[in-house]
Amino acid sequence: MLDEEVGLGAVTVLGVLEQAYFTLQVIYARRKYKVSPPATTGPPEFERVFRAQANCSEYFPIFITLLWMAGVFFSPGLSSVCGLLYLYGRFRYFRGYSQSAQGRLAPLYFSAKVLWVLIGFSTLGVFLSFLRVHLNMDLVQELCFALDML
Amino acid sequence: MLDEEVGLGAVTVLGVLEQAYFTLQVIYARRKYKVSPPATTGPPEFERVFRAQANCSEYFPIFITLLWMAGVFFSPGLSSVCGLLYLYGRFRYFRGYSQSAQGRLAPLYFSAKVLWVLIGFSTLGVFLSFLRVHLNMDLVQELCFALDML
Amino acid sequence: MLDEEVGLGAVTVLGVLEQAYFTLQVIYARRKYKVSPPATTGPPEFERVFRAQANCSEYFPIFITLLWMAGVFFSPGLSSVCGLLYLYGRFRYFRGYSQSAQGRLAPLYFSAKVLWVLIGFSTLGVFLSFLRVHLNMDLVQELCFALDML
Repeated sequence: MLDEEVGLGAVTVLGVLEQAYFTLQVIYARRKYKVSPPATTGPPEFERVFRAQANCSEYFPIFITLLWMAGVFFSPGLSSVCGLLYLYGRFRYFRGYSQSAQGRLAPLYFSAKVLWVLIGFSTLGVFLSFLRVHLNMDLVQELCFALDML
Repeated sequence: MLDEEVGLGAVTVLGVLEQAYFTLQVIYARRKYKVSPPATTGPPEFERVFRAQANCSEYFPIFITLLWMAGVFFSPGLSSVCGLLYLYGRFRYFRGYSQSAQGRLAPLYFSAKVLWVLIGFSTLGVFLSFLRVHLNMDLVQELCFALDML
Repeated sequence: MLDEEVGLGAVTVLGVLEQAYFTLQVIYARRKYKVSPPATTGPPEFERVFRAQANCSEYFPIFITLLWMAGVFFSPGLSSVCGLLYLYGRFRYFRGYSQSAQGRLAPLYFSAKVLWVLIGFSTLGVFLSFLRVHLNMDLVQELCFALDML
C-alpha cells in the first residue's frame, strides 16, 4: 500500500501543516485584537481571521476523506495533484478573508471546484470498483476492449 | 483491500455529498435571511439551519472514523448498513432542526444510537484483533469450536 | 494490515469515546445553565465547557489523521504511544478549561507538543517512503550499512 499512496501521504501532511499555520494566525490575531478565549467575537478584523480558520477546519475532514477516497479508488496521482491545488486555494482564501470578506470569494469558489472534481473522481472510482467486485464487470477493461475492436 | 471496502467507500462518498447539501442550505439561508459572513448570528430560522449544519459537520469526522474502524476491524457489510442509517438520520435531523429546535430531537437520538452501535462494533473488532495478534488467541474460532463440541 | 495497526485502531476508538464524553458534558452544561440550542452563548461557565468541546472536536480530525500517517508511514507503536499521551492531555485540557480559562493552558501546550511530535514522525515517514519508492533509495538501510562499516 505504501508505494502508491506516498503522494497522498505527503499532501495529507502538508494539509496538516497548513492547518497549523492557520491556527497560529488565530492565536496572533487574538493577541493583536485582545480577544481572550472563550470569546469568539470582537473587531471584524479578528472575526474574519477566526471564521477563515473555522471554515478551513470544517472542510479539512471532508478534504482528507475525498483525497483518500479518490486516491485509493480512482488514481493516487490525479488525487494528489487536486490535493495540492486545494491547499493552494485554501491558502489564498485565508489570506483574502483576513483582508476583507469580499477577498475570500474567488479562492473559495476555486477550492470548492477542486473538491467537486475530487467528489467526481471518488464517485467514479467507487462506482467502477462496485461493478467490478459485485457484478464482476470491469468497465474500464471492457471499454479498452471495445475501443480495440473498432 | 478494495474488494471488501467498496461498500464503505460508497457510504463515505454519500456522506460527503450529504455534507455538501447541508452546506448549500446554509448558503441559501444566508441569502434569504441576509446574514453575510463572517456573522453567524441572525433570525432564529437562520441560526437553526447554521447550527444544524455545524452539528453535522462536527460529527462527520467521528462518523467516518467509526464507519471505517467498524468496517475494517469488524464487518464491512454491517458497518455500511449502519452508515446508511446514520446518514438517513442526519438528513431527518437537518430537516427537523430547520423547522424547529424541537424537531431535531427524535432524529438526533436515532443518529446517536447508530453511532453507539458503530462504537460497539469498533470496540469489539479492535478487541478481538488485539487478542488474536498479541495473545495469539482467536476468540471467534474458539467460540465456534466450543459450540461444535456440545 | 490489521496486525500492525490494531494499536492505532485501539487509540482511535478510545479517542472517539473521549469525544463522546466531552459531548455529554456539554449536554449536562446546557441543562445546568439553561442554555437551549441553537444558542451557544451564556454564562462563562457554560461557554468554557462549550468552547473546550468545540476545540477538542476541531482538533479531532487532525489528530486522527496524524495518528494514522505517523503509524502507517513511520511506526505504529510510537504513534500509538503519542496518541495515548495526546488523549490524556486533552482530558486534562477539558477539565482545566471547565474550571477556568487559565486552567486550559498547560495541558493545551502539552497536547500541542505531542501533535508536533506526530507531525515530525509523519513527515519523516512520508519523506523516507518517498525516497524509497521514487528514488529507489533506502536511507534507513544505508544508514545501518554505513554504521556497520565503521
